[in-house]
Amino acid sequence: MADAKMTDIPAGWESRGKPPTLFKRFTFERYGQTRDFLDALAALSEELGVHPQNINFAATYANVTLEGREGGELADSDFAMAARIDALASGG
Amino acid sequence: MADAKMTDIPAGWESRGKPPTLFKRFTFERYGQTRDFLDALAALSEELGVHPQNINFAATYANVTLEGREGGELADSDFAMAARIDALASGG
Repeated sequence: MADAKMTDIPAGWESRGKPPTLFKRFTFERYGQTRDFLDALAALSEELGVHPQNINFAATYANVTLEGREGGELADSDFAMAARIDALASGG
Repeated sequence: MADAKMTDIPAGWESRGKPPTLFKRFTFERYGQTRDFLDALAALSEELGVHPQNINFAATYANVTLEGREGGELADSDFAMAARIDALASGG
């Protein structure tokens, strides 16, 4: 799987495909929680100046896909972003 | 295509599948516009108490899928919601 080291991938994230991406499904009990997560993720994206490749959501889940810069390999900054997204989902 | 009359479907929306859904892809020039659309759509959803079945978005597009109540047929209220979503996308 390219140059990304498995040990760099935050728990629950899955490395996929070419170009390489990181994927994780977040589930919530209520829409309000999903909405809070998406709002926090939008704020984080603006802070970092990096947006997920794709977000697919409905009332009680959000599937998040991150990609490497310009379609390239995943870098430490991508894994760090994944970890920060995890923190958002856990109310961090 | 079930009982929905084609004439009821707002322009650009496509009726799909079983259970019946309404699908439309909205494209934007900049992420800020996509974000404004998603925020407005969230506010509309809260106002109506109805959430899209699914929203799939990235920086410059948002794919919106509406479904009938409880997986049933599409109703006038769904077509009305679609028309209101169109208005959001055009800055209405």
